[in-house]
Amino acid sequence: MKTVSKKISFADSLTLQSGQILSGFEIMTETYGELNPDKTNAVLVCHAFSGNHHAAGIKDGEKKPGWWDEIIGDGKTIDTEKFFVVSLNNLGGCHGSSGPTSISSESGQPYGANFPEISVSDWVEAQKLLADHFEINCWEMVAGGSLGGMQALQWTISYPERVKKAAIIAASSKISTQNIALNEVAREIIRKDEDFHNGNYLAKGRSPKKGLKAARMLGHITYLSESNMRERFGRKLQDPENKMDADVNYEVENYLQYKGEQFAKTFDANSYILMTKAMDSFDPAKDFDNDLVKCLQNVKARLLIASFNSDWLFPKEYGLEIQMSAIKAGIDSAYIELEGDYGHDSFLFYSDQYADALKNFLNSNG
Amino acid sequence: MKTVSKKISFADSLTLQSGQILSGFEIMTETYGELNPDKTNAVLVCHAFSGNHHAAGIKDGEKKPGWWDEIIGDGKTIDTEKFFVVSLNNLGGCHGSSGPTSISSESGQPYGANFPEISVSDWVEAQKLLADHFEINCWEMVAGGSLGGMQALQWTISYPERVKKAAIIAASSKISTQNIALNEVAREIIRKDEDFHNGNYLAKGRSPKKGLKAARMLGHITYLSESNMRERFGRKLQDPENKMDADVNYEVENYLQYKGEQFAKTFDANSYILMTKAMDSFDPAKDFDNDLVKCLQNVKARLLIASFNSDWLFPKEYGLEIQMSAIKAGIDSAYIELEGDYGHDSFLFYSDQYADALKNFLNSNG
Repeated sequence: MKTVSKKISFADSLTLQSGQILSGFEIMTETYGELNPDKTNAVLVCHAFSGNHHAAGIKDGEKKPGWWDEIIGDGKTIDTEKFFVVSLNNLGGCHGSSGPTSISSESGQPYGANFPEISVSDWVEAQKLLADHFEINCWEMVAGGSLGGMQALQWTISYPERVKKAAIIAASSKISTQNIALNEVAREIIRKDEDFHNGNYLAKGRSPKKGLKAARMLGHITYLSESNMRERFGRKLQDPENKMDADVNYEVENYLQYKGEQFAKTFDANSYILMTKAMDSFDPAKDFDNDLVKCLQNVKARLLIASFNSDWLFPKEYGLEIQMSAIKAGIDSAYIELEGDYGHDSFLFYSDQYADALKNFLNSNG
Repeated sequence: MKTVSKKISFADSLTLQSGQILSGFEIMTETYGELNPDKTNAVLVCHAFSGNHHAAGIKDGEKKPGWWDEIIGDGKTIDTEKFFVVSLNNLGGCHGSSGPTSISSESGQPYGANFPEISVSDWVEAQKLLADHFEINCWEMVAGGSLGGMQALQWTISYPERVKKAAIIAASSKISTQNIALNEVAREIIRKDEDFHNGNYLAKGRSPKKGLKAARMLGHITYLSESNMRERFGRKLQDPENKMDADVNYEVENYLQYKGEQFAKTFDANSYILMTKAMDSFDPAKDFDNDLVKCLQNVKARLLIASFNSDWLFPKEYGLEIQMSAIKAGIDSAYIELEGDYGHDSFLFYSDQYADALKNFLNSNG
């Protein structure tokens, strides 16, 4: 699989949904496969909350493959022998694209908490400039799970002529009150870490790792299903020699401690806050009298909407809501409820049913 | 309603399940109604995680009634004109009974993190001594919701001859892996508060209020149902003048901020940790080859097991598991699934269905 990692600079300023202006920015990208001469075989994959541009393959010196490696590759569901797959780290992220850890040209300091508020629409705007950069006039497919699925949906609304198919997986047209509440708890934990310093911790050489860790532990519970946790850990006690923390009793506690700690090493707290706020505020129907049918009226893309039966963070009702609205709006769309062993995280993993649906959707004409 | 609040001292030492010994302790109690001459009209109500001895009525100078005020009172479901209701703050609590905020007679300092580990069985032992104190040989009913329901269940196992009826509401015979995980996140948040000082914050004149607040915000989400939050708050934005925190956008965030802050003012962090650990470790079947049927074999009490349809923390499967085991063990038991608007917290509120079931159960002979 031909893989190219590249940071791309955009000199033009980007007016954000908030009204703030980003005067020039960088986007970290990774592409898989080759763009055909007609530039008609391009697939955009959008990452979820904690993902980044590294979607497939294993990088030198790393053990973990990209976040959608089970789906993207030569001969895989999104076949890189046939398609040119574009992946990127979103604006506001912390893996190479302009974000809170970048140096502001104005202050010469890291943006920190001063990085502007970013919305899902803003991500689509930046991705549109990326499409222009690659001279891709129309994506064969835009796909993503969770927050990535929201971007896929927003693409069909923002640029109806520039996306043929959209795969909206484990996502919703707006998150629930409960999800906003859970995101707020995560933010509260981070903000109240003594090392947060109102978001300007980098300038002080600090990082609110304790807060990030606990926030991720919470997030992790919501990504897994109750049954998955039960089958995997049950009420097994942690073997005393391998305790992450002296207070840990059960294996599941130790697992979360470990996952949280690993995450806190590589993620930025301001990005965490920014991404959760983007998720909270996503609600494309808001500009259409809160009517999702009206909002989808001009969509030209065909939609594949998929939910997982074990996902309690974005349960099937949300997928069905998009499907019902798409039907009412007269859009070519299909909804599928998939079995997934991993709760919300199921969208990351291969299963025959899931791959069949996605592969046939991508390869179909119509 | 005759109400008596009283702190009762026990001079004898109590050997705890952990093997540690508590050399004398105090229990804060509140009783409603009057004990009949035969001492056969006594009802013990056990509080849930954050409850205390104040179960009914409104205290002078306070606005909020006791936690089960909708159920307990003259002419109410648990009728204090007929029954003598005993309520208490459990050992390890922070509302008058011996707990981490009490002064250790050995060190002359608050126990803090050195207060011994307490289990649900230990609570039942202390409550048994309380029954002896009141010369109550057999409770007409032991009742409680959530962690309180676990105590009611433990009573039937520990002292089969001393409880006639047990109402086990919104509870389980052991909590799920997911619940342990959520409890661990709450503990992690508290432990990593800079003011926690390994649990010895009182000796330093500090309190980890920030951690307690965030832990409670998380807890609060799990006590309410998704639909209740949606109907009550939806995606309404918070009016800017009444924001608890400048970063708050939505009403639901503000509500949680408020609830968390109020809680942190009155609760003790070590009690929070102790109570969640007691909840995690509750698993009476463990001593019976993990066989709940065997565990219930000697139970003599009649059981009323109730779950609420909107409760996702202790869903009905857990109530049904107790009921199935009770049937197999040949115990007189009834299971009812109730409609509740408030998720797990539904057990705190009156509804006709709920009150009917509980009242008839309490007043029946058999």
